[in-house]
Amino acid sequence: MPNFEAGKFDVIVVGAGHAGVEAALAAAKMGAKTLVLTINLDMIAFMPCNPSIGGPAKGIVVREIDALGGAMGKVIDKTHIQMRMLNTGKGPAVRALRAQADKVLYQNEMKRLLEEQENLTIHQAVVEELLVEDEKVVGLITQVGAVYRAETVVITTGTFLRGEIIIGDLKYSSGPNNQQPSIKLADSIRNLGFDLVRFKTGTPPRVNSKTVDYSKTEIQPGDDVPRAFSFETTEFIMDQLPCWLTYTSEKTHQIINDNLHLSPMYSGMIKGTGPRYCPSIEDKVVRFSDKPRHQIFLEPEGRNTREVYVQGLSTSLPEHVQRQLIASVPGLEKAEMMRAGYAIEYDAMVPTQLWPTLETKKIKNLYTAGQINGTSGYEEAAGQGLMAGINAALRVLKKEEKVLSRSDAYIGVLIDDLVTKGTNEPYRLLTSRAEYRLLLRHDNADLRLLEMGYTIGLVSQERYDKFVAKKKRVEDELVRLRTLFIKPNETTQELIRSVEGSELKDGIRAADLLKRTEMHYDLVAELAPSEVELSLEEKEQVEIQVKYEGYIEKSLQQVEKLKKMEDKKIPDQLDYDAISGIATEAKQKLKQVRPLSIAQASRISGVNPADISILLIYIEQGKIAKITG
Amino acid sequence: MPNFEAGKFDVIVVGAGHAGVEAALAAAKMGAKTLVLTINLDMIAFMPCNPSIGGPAKGIVVREIDALGGAMGKVIDKTHIQMRMLNTGKGPAVRALRAQADKVLYQNEMKRLLEEQENLTIHQAVVEELLVEDEKVVGLITQVGAVYRAETVVITTGTFLRGEIIIGDLKYSSGPNNQQPSIKLADSIRNLGFDLVRFKTGTPPRVNSKTVDYSKTEIQPGDDVPRAFSFETTEFIMDQLPCWLTYTSEKTHQIINDNLHLSPMYSGMIKGTGPRYCPSIEDKVVRFSDKPRHQIFLEPEGRNTREVYVQGLSTSLPEHVQRQLIASVPGLEKAEMMRAGYAIEYDAMVPTQLWPTLETKKIKNLYTAGQINGTSGYEEAAGQGLMAGINAALRVLKKEEKVLSRSDAYIGVLIDDLVTKGTNEPYRLLTSRAEYRLLLRHDNADLRLLEMGYTIGLVSQERYDKFVAKKKRVEDELVRLRTLFIKPNETTQELIRSVEGSELKDGIRAADLLKRTEMHYDLVAELAPSEVELSLEEKEQVEIQVKYEGYIEKSLQQVEKLKKMEDKKIPDQLDYDAISGIATEAKQKLKQVRPLSIAQASRISGVNPADISILLIYIEQGKIAKITG
Ligand SMILES: Cc1cc2nc3c(=O)[nH]c(=O)nc-3n(C[C@H](O)[C@H](O)[C@H](O)COP(=O)(O)OP(=O)(O)OC[C@H]3O[C@@H](n4cnc5c(N)ncnc54)[C@H](O)[C@@H]3O)c2cc1C
Ligand SMILES: Cc1cc2nc3c(=O)[nH]c(=O)nc-3n(C[C@H](O)[C@H](O)[C@H](O)COP(=O)(O)OP(=O)(O)OC[C@H]3O[C@@H](n4cnc5c(N)ncnc54)[C@H](O)[C@@H]3O)c2cc1C
Repeated sequence: MPNFEAGKFDVIVVGAGHAGVEAALAAAKMGAKTLVLTINLDMIAFMPCNPSIGGPAKGIVVREIDALGGAMGKVIDKTHIQMRMLNTGKGPAVRALRAQADKVLYQNEMKRLLEEQENLTIHQAVVEELLVEDEKVVGLITQVGAVYRAETVVITTGTFLRGEIIIGDLKYSSGPNNQQPSIKLADSIRNLGFDLVRFKTGTPPRVNSKTVDYSKTEIQPGDDVPRAFSFETTEFIMDQLPCWLTYTSEKTHQIINDNLHLSPMYSGMIKGTGPRYCPSIEDKVVRFSDKPRHQIFLEPEGRNTREVYVQGLSTSLPEHVQRQLIASVPGLEKAEMMRAGYAIEYDAMVPTQLWPTLETKKIKNLYTAGQINGTSGYEEAAGQGLMAGINAALRVLKKEEKVLSRSDAYIGVLIDDLVTKGTNEPYRLLTSRAEYRLLLRHDNADLRLLEMGYTIGLVSQERYDKFVAKKKRVEDELVRLRTLFIKPNETTQELIRSVEGSELKDGIRAADLLKRTEMHYDLVAELAPSEVELSLEEKEQVEIQVKYEGYIEKSLQQVEKLKKMEDKKIPDQLDYDAISGIATEAKQKLKQVRPLSIAQASRISGVNPADISILLIYIEQGKIAKITG
Repeated sequence: MPNFEAGKFDVIVVGAGHAGVEAALAAAKMGAKTLVLTINLDMIAFMPCNPSIGGPAKGIVVREIDALGGAMGKVIDKTHIQMRMLNTGKGPAVRALRAQADKVLYQNEMKRLLEEQENLTIHQAVVEELLVEDEKVVGLITQVGAVYRAETVVITTGTFLRGEIIIGDLKYSSGPNNQQPSIKLADSIRNLGFDLVRFKTGTPPRVNSKTVDYSKTEIQPGDDVPRAFSFETTEFIMDQLPCWLTYTSEKTHQIINDNLHLSPMYSGMIKGTGPRYCPSIEDKVVRFSDKPRHQIFLEPEGRNTREVYVQGLSTSLPEHVQRQLIASVPGLEKAEMMRAGYAIEYDAMVPTQLWPTLETKKIKNLYTAGQINGTSGYEEAAGQGLMAGINAALRVLKKEEKVLSRSDAYIGVLIDDLVTKGTNEPYRLLTSRAEYRLLLRHDNADLRLLEMGYTIGLVSQERYDKFVAKKKRVEDELVRLRTLFIKPNETTQELIRSVEGSELKDGIRAADLLKRTEMHYDLVAELAPSEVELSLEEKEQVEIQVKYEGYIEKSLQQVEKLKKMEDKKIPDQLDYDAISGIATEAKQKLKQVRPLSIAQASRISGVNPADISILLIYIEQGKIAKITG
C-alpha cells in the first residue's frame, strides 16, 4: 500500500466512542483544526453494555462534563427514556442522576453534533500506525495508507486493541459486539515502548420484552418531575418508560455452581483482569455464596425496540448455560435471548505512563483517554476524553495546560487515581474514591467548573453571563440570610409549629433557622421574603450551602492544606536515586510515576509518610539546583 | 467448542438483510415457528449502499411485496425523507415510485417489526455450518456451538460470504462497511457441492453536507402530493428533504484516466464480476469516453445526519484519488469525505442450482434468497426473500408451493431469469427484462397479487375485504362506462371543446370517449356521473384499463399462449440423454437447469426452437412412461 499525504491537523482523535467524541468536540470548539477517525461511522458513541448513563459518582461526572462545556449531558437529556435522581432521601453529596438511554438515538444525536461542529472533520478509517519523531508524535497512518500530520494525537480506542470476545471456550478476535478489532495499532503502541496490560470486561444477554412476564417483577418508574443532566436543558422528556426489577433464584445459583468448570473465568481461559465493581454473575455467586439472590434489572434499550438489557447477569458462560440462567429468573422463564452475554479481553495502557494532562510521558503531544487508560464506563471515558481534548487543544494554542484537582471534580479524582496509583483492574469511579465528597456535588458542578469551561473557550459568553448572574443571586441571598434577623413573633412561631419545630426563644439569623432539619428555604423565605425571585436551582443551592455549611467549611480547610502540598512542586528531572533515605519500593514508584507535586507523591501507594518527609526536606533544601541546572 | 441443542424450528432464516427480514416475517406470519439468525442485531436491514428504495422496476417490486403482505413498502412509507413518482409524463407501464430513506430509521423500524412478530425468534449469531442428512437440510450450527434443528432453512447472507473489501491495492477480509465477513458458512456451502461464483459490487464515498456548496447544484425536491408504496398506508410524510444534482467535470475524467493504473478493476486485482447497471465511475468514464459528463446526485442519508451519499461516484480507486475526484465535482470542491468508496468481492450461488421456489435442487428444504443468488439491490433481495420465506413455510405447512410467473409480477421475472438463465454478473431488475410490462404496473400490483397474499395467509381478512370491494367498484365502473352511451348534445360538445378535442358526430360509449388522449376520467364522469363515489386510486385504475385496453388485451393473449406452454410440464426425472436429436449444448443446459415446463425450457439460452420441438414431441408421445415408471 503506497502511502499518501491526507492532510494536516492540529488535533487528531483516534476513535469516536464516549471518550473520542468529547475530545474531538472540545478541541474543535476551542479552535483547533480537528480530525476524528473511527472504524465505523454507524457506531459513533455506541453503548456496548448497559443502556444507561449516570448513577453514583458517574452522574456527577456527567454534570461536570456539562459545566466544562462537554456534550454527554446534553445528548442524554435529548435521548433518554427515563431519568431518576438517586438517593434523594440522603445528603446532597450522594445524590446523583441516572438516565436510561435510547441507545440508537444517543448514537445518532452524538453523530449529528460531530457532523455539525465547526473545525471538525469526521472520517471513517482504521488507524494502524503512529508516526513519531524525536519522541514527539507527528501524525499517523491509516489502513488505506493515508498519512495525516498532526500537532497532537489523542487515542481513545476503548476495548478494541487486540480485542477478543470470549463465550464459553470460544475465543475470537473481535471488537465489542462483533465489530472489527484493532490489532496493528496495538502493535504500534507497544513498539513505541509503552507498557500494556490485558484487561477484560463483560456484558449480559439481551432478551425480547415480548417474551417477559412482567407480572413477576417490580416496576421501576422514572421520576415524575423534570430532570436533566445539563444546566442548559430547558426541554424535558416526561413520557418515560419504566424498568423492572427481579432477582436471581436458587436455581440460578445452582446452574452457575454446576457449570463453573465451563466458565472461561475459572478455567483460566480469560487471562485479563475484570472489573471488581461490575462483576459477572458467576463471580457474584461464587464470591458471595451466602447471598441467596442478586438483583436483576430489566432495562429497555430504547423507545422503538423490544430489546431488553438484563442488568446483573453479565456472563461469559457458554450460550447454553446462559439460556438456562435466563430461564431461572422469575419473569424470564420464557424469555427469548436476543444476544448472548460475552466477555471481551483487550490491551490497555498502564496509566502511570501518563501525565495528569493525559499526555504520555514517553511521547510528547500524544494523549490517551477512555477505556484504553484502564477505566471502565462511559462517563469515565467521556470525562477523560474531554480533558485530553482540552489539553491537546491548549498545547496547540500554546496555552497553559489544565488539570482538575481532586477537590475540583470527580474527573480530577479519576485522572489523579489513574496517573498516580495506576490500576490493576478496570477502574470504575465510586463516591468512596473522593475525599471531598461534600464538595463534589451534583448541584454545584457549575459553581466548581463553569468558570474553567469559559476560560478555555468551551462555554459561550451568553451561558457564562447567565451563570455569573446565578452565582451572584446565590451569594447575595446567602449574605442576606446570614445577616437578616428573624423575630420570634407569632407568625414565625406558627410557621415553626406547622413543621413541628421547637419555638424560638430569641431572635435568630435566617440562615441559622434554615439550618434546622425541618426547615426549608421556602419556609424561611416566607418569614423573610427576598426581593429577588430565585429559581428552584438557586433555592436548592442556597439551602445546601446553608445547611451543610459546617461540613463544607471543614472540607475546604482540608483542601487548603492539600493545596499547600500541591503547590510544593517536584521538578520533572528530579534524580530520586540521588536522595538517600527513601525506601527502595518508594523510589521505584516515584521514578515510575514522576509525580508533579508533593501531594501527588504522597498518594502513590508504597510511598510512605517517612519517604515524603525526606523528599520534602530534599527539595526544600534546594538540593534540586544541581540536577535541574 | 462442544455443541449443544439450542432448539427446533420450522423455518430458520440466516441473515437479517433485506431478503432475510421478508423471509422471516412471512414465514412467521404464515404460522411457521421461525428463527432468524444474524451477525449483528444493530445492523438489521442495513443499507450499505444508496439510501433509497424503489425506482424503475424496483419500485414496482416493492408494490408487489406489499400486495403479497410483505414489509418493505410499509417500512419505507414510515421512514422516508423524500418520495417521487418517476415518469409521470409517460405511460403507466414505466411509472415507478422512488423514495429516499432515512437509513437509520429504516433499520430501527424493520428491527421493531421483527421483534414484535408472533412466532418469530430473533437471535444474534454467526452461522458456520449447515446440517444435512440424506440430501435434506435438517439444521445448522452457530459459532458458539448452538445446534438448531429445522424443517427448512433460508440462507440470505448477501455479500458476506468470504467478503473482501478492496480500495486501491488494499484488500482485506470484511463484510460490507467493515462488518465481520462469513467465511466458514461459505466453506460449508461449497462443501455441500454447490457451485459458487465470485461477484463484486461497489459503493461511492459519502461527504458532509456542511461542506457542500449547493449553489452550484440543482435542487431535486420530492413530490408535493402524498405518495406511498403500501396500498395500506394512510399517513403520509409531507415534510421532505431535497436531493441535489451536479455533474462530473472534465477534470474528473482527467483524474480517472490519469489514475487508471491504480484501479483494482483494471490492475486485475478485482476478479469478481461487477454489476453492469451500477458501474463504477472509472467504468463509466472508460466505457463512455465520448460522454463529457455524468450525473451525480447528492442524497442525504437521513433526516438527522449530515452524511450525504454521492450517487454516481461509486469507485474502488485509492482514497487519495477519491479525494481528488470529489474535489473535481462542482459543488464538492471543498467537500469533506466522511467515508471512502470501496468495492466488495463475495461468493454467490450459481442460481440455476435453484428451483423456481428458490429451493436448492441439491439439498431439499434448503432455500437461498437475495444477493447470495447473484442479484444486486435491496428490492431484488426483498422480493426473493419474501418468496423463499413463503415457500419454506408452505413446505412446513405441507401446502402447495407458490411460484410467480413472468406475467404475474416483476418478482416472477426476476426469479425465472435467475433460475432459468443464470447470471454472469450481479443481476439487476430492469423494465426491459419483462415481456409484459404493460401488465406489471405500479398501479395494479394489488389486482395482480393480493389474492395470492390472502390465500397463503399474509393478507388479513379486513384488508382482503377492502380489496374485493375496490376491485368490484372498478369492474362495475368499467362495465358501466363500456355500456353507457353518451349523446352528442351541447353539454358534451362544450366539454370536448374545452379540452380541444374534436366534437362528436354520433353518440359514443363512455369508455370510447375516455380512450381519447385529451380525455380523463373526471371529465367523462361529468357527462356520465357514477352513483358510486370512486377513490382517486380507483379512478386511475379505471382510466388506465380503458385507455390501454388494446395493449393490455394483446399482452393478455400472449400470456394465454405462454400459459399453454407453461402447462406442458416436463417431468423432473426426464433423461435428456435418451432423447435423440437435441443439440449437445441444449442437452447440457437442459440437464443443468432441469426446467419444469416447456415454456421455461424455451427461455434457456442455448436451447433453440428446434430443440424445443423435439422435446415437445418426445413428451407428448408419452415416451416419458418408461423413465418415470
Ligand atoms: C462487552 C463490554 C462490556 C462492558 N461492560 C461495562 C460495564 O459493565 N460497566 C461499565 O461501566 N462499562 C462497561 N463497558 C465499558 C464501556 O463500554 C466503555 O468504558 C466505554 O465505551 C469506553 O469508551 P471509550 O471511548 O474509551 O471506548 P469505546 O466506546 O469502545 O470507543 C472506541 C472507539 O475507538 C475506535 N477505534 C478503535 N480502534 C481504532 C483504530 N485503530 N482506528 C480508528 N478508530 C478506532 C472505535 O471505532 C470506537 O469508535 C463494557 C464494554 C464492553 C465492550
Ligand atoms: C458495497 C456495496 C455496494 C452495493 N452497491 C449496490 C448498488 O450500487 N446497487 C444496488 O442495487 N445494490 C447494491 N448493493 C447491494 C445491496 O446492498 C444488496 O443487494 C442488498 O443489501 C442485499 O440484501 P441481502 O438481504 O441479500 O443481503 P444483506 O443486506 O447484505 O444481508 C445479509 C445478512 O446476512 C447476515 N449474515 C451473513 N452471514 C451470516 C452468517 N454466517 N450467520 C448469520 N448471519 C449472517 C448479515 O449479518 C446480514 O444481516 C451493494 C452492497 C454493498 C455491500
